[in-house]
Amino acid sequence: MSILIVGTTALDSIKTPHSENPRLLGGSASHAAVAASFFAPVNLLGVVGDDFPDEYIDLYKKHGIDLTGLEKASGNTFHWEGEYEVNMNNRQTLETDLGVIEEWMPTLGDDLTDKDYVLLANCAPQLQHHVLKQMKQPKFVVADTMDLWLNIARHELEALLKEVDCLVLNDSEARQFMEEDNVVVAAQRLHKFGPKYVIVKKGEHGSILSGPSGLFIAPAFPLNKVIDPTGAGDSFVGGLVGYLASHEGDIEKNLRQAIIHGSVTASFCCEGFGLAATTEATRKQIDQRIEQLKEMIAF
Amino acid sequence: MSILIVGTTALDSIKTPHSENPRLLGGSASHAAVAASFFAPVNLLGVVGDDFPDEYIDLYKKHGIDLTGLEKASGNTFHWEGEYEVNMNNRQTLETDLGVIEEWMPTLGDDLTDKDYVLLANCAPQLQHHVLKQMKQPKFVVADTMDLWLNIARHELEALLKEVDCLVLNDSEARQFMEEDNVVVAAQRLHKFGPKYVIVKKGEHGSILSGPSGLFIAPAFPLNKVIDPTGAGDSFVGGLVGYLASHEGDIEKNLRQAIIHGSVTASFCCEGFGLAATTEATRKQIDQRIEQLKEMIAF
Repeated sequence: MSILIVGTTALDSIKTPHSENPRLLGGSASHAAVAASFFAPVNLLGVVGDDFPDEYIDLYKKHGIDLTGLEKASGNTFHWEGEYEVNMNNRQTLETDLGVIEEWMPTLGDDLTDKDYVLLANCAPQLQHHVLKQMKQPKFVVADTMDLWLNIARHELEALLKEVDCLVLNDSEARQFMEEDNVVVAAQRLHKFGPKYVIVKKGEHGSILSGPSGLFIAPAFPLNKVIDPTGAGDSFVGGLVGYLASHEGDIEKNLRQAIIHGSVTASFCCEGFGLAATTEATRKQIDQRIEQLKEMIAF
Repeated sequence: MSILIVGTTALDSIKTPHSENPRLLGGSASHAAVAASFFAPVNLLGVVGDDFPDEYIDLYKKHGIDLTGLEKASGNTFHWEGEYEVNMNNRQTLETDLGVIEEWMPTLGDDLTDKDYVLLANCAPQLQHHVLKQMKQPKFVVADTMDLWLNIARHELEALLKEVDCLVLNDSEARQFMEEDNVVVAAQRLHKFGPKYVIVKKGEHGSILSGPSGLFIAPAFPLNKVIDPTGAGDSFVGGLVGYLASHEGDIEKNLRQAIIHGSVTASFCCEGFGLAATTEATRKQIDQRIEQLKEMIAF
């Protein structure tokens, strides 16, 4: 079954102590769509400006991503500039230019509103909700978010969560959301806002799922070298939803495998700037890492 | 088979935002010995002062710990005073009084030097080495350490590591030791100092084993409430060595199970001040949590 993914389609300028990487393809929807494309057909819903390079369109196409929902508007593409310290866990936003996504509230055609799997990748909750309301009868809806929206659009985020099956956020955001230092407790309490499933991302430490059958503790794939973690969380949810869409049957039954597949897909993302490593990965390599990971957690 | 555990036998005064807990039984050897006692016979090697309460001797005895090696010296028992913030990951040492352990360099009787499993729980590397040199033919030697010794006794620590089978340390210490931000890489590089096995403790995020057959990624048992993590790392190594000593055969084959048993034993430690919760736990409860953990990581 196919997936609708909405979120940001951006240009990211990423500095590290050793290099500068201007205007790479980035954004939550770009990372999520490429990750999901390893598993299932993907429809990308997003907006870019007239400065958006053709080569990035080609990259989407290389992954078989349906671009019916990718709008080209007059103005600049959303641009994010960030700098990482030596410790890749610390990054600083240097500049953000929302560009054409600032006012964008798309109307979806019938060819997009009938998708079974919906991934509301990280973007304004108002936009996520606007898209979700147009979907006819989605089977499973996943929303990713970030601290920015907790700070400036909490009310809108809470309204959205009432209609979402699965919320994904990182550990510091879960703590902030619930004003609770214990991540396990925070995850379990987040259900009260609506989502049946809550997934807390912990970066290199893996993730935790809280759902009707209790907790699932998922490892991350250990990496000897992290080049650029930008988009790893988006790749995680993309791989996760991609796996679900490609496996019929009970969500409850498939969600753990989906998390592992998302986690491993995200590991490739960290191994190159922007989408450089993800786009070179293959489904076979993903499956190999999953087998390696199984071996690394067996006891 | 029985275990020799050497380390600190201390009195810990632990403050939290909500309570003060003066002069609890603590120290690396106390926590490790009680944890190991769930699995195998334990010989405790340590020194206490004449202020050491009889009730703590009774607590050791309740766990069947052999106290032949516990010396009573004239002076104060090692005393540590620390304060935790609301976030239990942040703690501050308020005062340390080494007391009788400062000059202690024990000579072991034949009844102690023939033990097969040796746990050099966290204490000065000089003391750890002094004890290890007296052991006749240990089957497996584990050493735990901390940042203090990296700072003030690195040379002695490196000398010790040449003769140790397994080094255990936490993630920030592994980073510091190897001047390497990536914990996975730091763990793998630590072998060059001697240990065949290196285990990096990551607190609530579990631990990583690096050994001849690659990496093992171990989860921590998720806790809804952490009362006091003091001694959790010591309980981890204690449970680990206890499990190994109670399971004949190939170390390589048993080490992963041993890490899981250590991890779960440590989870009880976090649920009470000092040894309060560990000492109330039962082997049956440990086994139950291991079954629960298996369920929580299955996919």
